[in-house]
Amino acid sequence: MKSLLKPFLGVVLVAGIAGAAHAQAPFAKPEYAIKYRQSAMFIMGQNFGRIGAVVKGERPYNKDEVAKYAAVAAEMSKLPWEGFVAGTDKGETHAKPEIWTDAAKFKSASEKMEQEIGKLAEVAKGGDLNAIKAQFGATGKACKACHDDFKEK
Amino acid sequence: MKSLLKPFLGVVLVAGIAGAAHAQAPFAKPEYAIKYRQSAMFIMGQNFGRIGAVVKGERPYNKDEVAKYAAVAAEMSKLPWEGFVAGTDKGETHAKPEIWTDAAKFKSASEKMEQEIGKLAEVAKGGDLNAIKAQFGATGKACKACHDDFKEK
Repeated sequence: MKSLLKPFLGVVLVAGIAGAAHAQAPFAKPEYAIKYRQSAMFIMGQNFGRIGAVVKGERPYNKDEVAKYAAVAAEMSKLPWEGFVAGTDKGETHAKPEIWTDAAKFKSASEKMEQEIGKLAEVAKGGDLNAIKAQFGATGKACKACHDDFKEK
Repeated sequence: MKSLLKPFLGVVLVAGIAGAAHAQAPFAKPEYAIKYRQSAMFIMGQNFGRIGAVVKGERPYNKDEVAKYAAVAAEMSKLPWEGFVAGTDKGETHAKPEIWTDAAKFKSASEKMEQEIGKLAEVAKGGDLNAIKAQFGATGKACKACHDDFKEK
């Protein structure tokens, strides 16, 4: 348990509210904020990728599995934003400065992705593979649009 | 989108079912399985730690915040297990071999943690700080018990 609490023993609050696109949670260190958003993105990407493998015919379609992957991805899509605290454009990150300098556009692009992946989770429950394919495409577009503008290659 | 799908272009399935404590999802590479479980643990730990700061009086108690942190932590607690695929006791990991050699005990310890953190999420909704403190302690115990047996220091 100790290791889980360690970040809070020497609390260095990253207050950065300026340009906050989403509600921000406390992180003991800037690198935890970066790791937090990257962790959420990674889990989201893994689950989205599993659906992609089904969509591309590389894996057999299983309704329950795809519904679960989409549900987890949709849950994850809510988490990264609080990690984009001010001052975390440096370090081990591919975040572009535009995340903070064009916060309104970033918010809109990230919300679009959340919406699309939320729809994917809904569609996946229905079990119509063609509908899943279409919504997978729409979701991927929203991922890409945000990455194009706000993520370094 | 491409980068999200990349892992699936050269699919190297880590089949390892032997000793599987929980249902396992496909990972393109063993290191993705390790990163997956670590990502979930990290997000869980951050949210649990935020509650810990409140419990220890380092941060003011806000019912909605604590309820949200506990809900996210509880969601996260369901995810790490699929990452413990066979063969992922090597590399950038603190996983002890006992995870695989004593899979039944690992399953039981991890389920205990899931239960306790699930209860924490329930209690947190209620808004009784003393009850939250008690359940936070019970949850921390379950975290620690599993780490003591299955995580390298």
